[in-house]
Amino acid sequence: MSELTLIKYIRETFPDHRDEILKGIGDDAMVFKNGFVVSTDSFVEGIHFDFNYFTKYNLGYRCMCASLSDLAAMSAEPICALISLYLPVQTKNSDIKQLYRGFNSICKKYKCDISGGDIIESPFWGITITVIGKTKKPLLRSGAKPGDFLYTTNYLGLAETGRIVLSEGYKKTQFTQSIKRHLYPEPRINESLRLRQFAHAGIDTSDGLSTDAFHLSEESKVKIVIENIPIHPEVRLLFKIKKLSPIDFILSAGEDFELLFTGKLIKKISGVKIFKIGKVMEGRGLYLSYAGKLKKILPSGYEHLK
Amino acid sequence: MSELTLIKYIRETFPDHRDEILKGIGDDAMVFKNGFVVSTDSFVEGIHFDFNYFTKYNLGYRCMCASLSDLAAMSAEPICALISLYLPVQTKNSDIKQLYRGFNSICKKYKCDISGGDIIESPFWGITITVIGKTKKPLLRSGAKPGDFLYTTNYLGLAETGRIVLSEGYKKTQFTQSIKRHLYPEPRINESLRLRQFAHAGIDTSDGLSTDAFHLSEESKVKIVIENIPIHPEVRLLFKIKKLSPIDFILSAGEDFELLFTGKLIKKISGVKIFKIGKVMEGRGLYLSYAGKLKKILPSGYEHLK
Repeated sequence: MSELTLIKYIRETFPDHRDEILKGIGDDAMVFKNGFVVSTDSFVEGIHFDFNYFTKYNLGYRCMCASLSDLAAMSAEPICALISLYLPVQTKNSDIKQLYRGFNSICKKYKCDISGGDIIESPFWGITITVIGKTKKPLLRSGAKPGDFLYTTNYLGLAETGRIVLSEGYKKTQFTQSIKRHLYPEPRINESLRLRQFAHAGIDTSDGLSTDAFHLSEESKVKIVIENIPIHPEVRLLFKIKKLSPIDFILSAGEDFELLFTGKLIKKISGVKIFKIGKVMEGRGLYLSYAGKLKKILPSGYEHLK
Repeated sequence: MSELTLIKYIRETFPDHRDEILKGIGDDAMVFKNGFVVSTDSFVEGIHFDFNYFTKYNLGYRCMCASLSDLAAMSAEPICALISLYLPVQTKNSDIKQLYRGFNSICKKYKCDISGGDIIESPFWGITITVIGKTKKPLLRSGAKPGDFLYTTNYLGLAETGRIVLSEGYKKTQFTQSIKRHLYPEPRINESLRLRQFAHAGIDTSDGLSTDAFHLSEESKVKIVIENIPIHPEVRLLFKIKKLSPIDFILSAGEDFELLFTGKLIKKISGVKIFKIGKVMEGRGLYLSYAGKLKKILPSGYEHLK
């Protein structure tokens, strides 16, 4: 069962019953009618992070960013995080403190308290973070309308380029922005709160453009056509060296933690970089308009269970 | 660093700042001023469960019970659960469905929706459950007052007796209630909601009587004297066979998921078994009054990080 199929199974088998809930499974976070937004995200050693080039500080920073990015995707302001740690018995105190400094560096910036969690002994490192935020008007995946355009808050594929450069040993000085995006991504909370007035639907780009855009089209029951994918010079350089298509790469490269959103007319907001990359139409499915042809594309981003 | 020391470090380093929060780290769950209560709990293969005698259904049931027990400890009514699964790549669909049937059997009983979560690939099975509930008046660990008595909702040590019987191979027919308590514990939600009017402080017995009572004494800044520990016949039988003290065992045996609470006068509530096991006094620390002597005792229950 793929992750998407499994989530579909769970969602259909256990529908929401409780009055308190506005939206359960099927978005970046669940939403309560009182405006509370809750999301949970897990990371495991060897799958999501590699201690060869990740310090414990990097790890804390990055996991917390990924978690808060789910609140950004809902246009929610963070309140607090609960952190569950799976730790090997021999873990050093200094490693745990470094990890928490990583968590806190990003929490502090977004005024997010660390308010709970638990710690268990485990054969491997694992981290599950539950974040809780609040929103006056949640930005759902289901709000895209025909006539909308599709936007991102930045270039995509940078974080995965950084990961490849670090793990495969390319020359670091040529890829400084990619490495920075991989090690120190930024949850787009401020951008999301400011864009909320214009945006109809949104998601964060954690699983790759094709998967994330596919979710928008599925939940909104619309057709989405990606027309113009901006390519960052560092991504272009890496894929020139690799002799591969940067477009295919960007469609499947995740973990940039940018916002992918739709809206009719997005006014320029100072300090927020936005690219218009496609459009929303009547119909269903995800398409790429490339070299004069319209090609149906399937989610090709990171799937957590193969 | 022990788990207690680590939690103390985290609590002191990252105090609450947010206005929305009534109580952060330091209780069975965190509490918001709007009455929402949130707790997170993790379980890992080989440490918390053993597939030699646990079906996936048992696992789901038991983990969800442990999680909801934290809401019971706060006297909160469950609303929903978010489930994070760490799964090996080769996990069968039927195992995942069985696990979810286990989760749902206890969720359904307590009207708790399954409203989210995530699924990641992992070298081992791991489960983190975040539960969200609501309360009009949270039952904190810090409310015990000199003059209170200490109560439990049932015999203690039964679940651990059941685990020993199953894992060490004692005759199952002599330990039916212990095995049942280990495989099918019950979160004391209904009991907790009904006892709330009488209780001053409470915790669930997840880490063993001595650790849990120690938490009450620490958070309430009182002295607690355990005077009378009821011993279930099955616990007595096992420790007669083992030629060990059942009292020492009960002080350290966790995972019964009963309530340990204090109050002045607890009126009889039909259908709720209650034992008065000790008293609350001015002072600090935890003591056992046994065979005419008063002995200071330290937390000896399960510590998640040695």
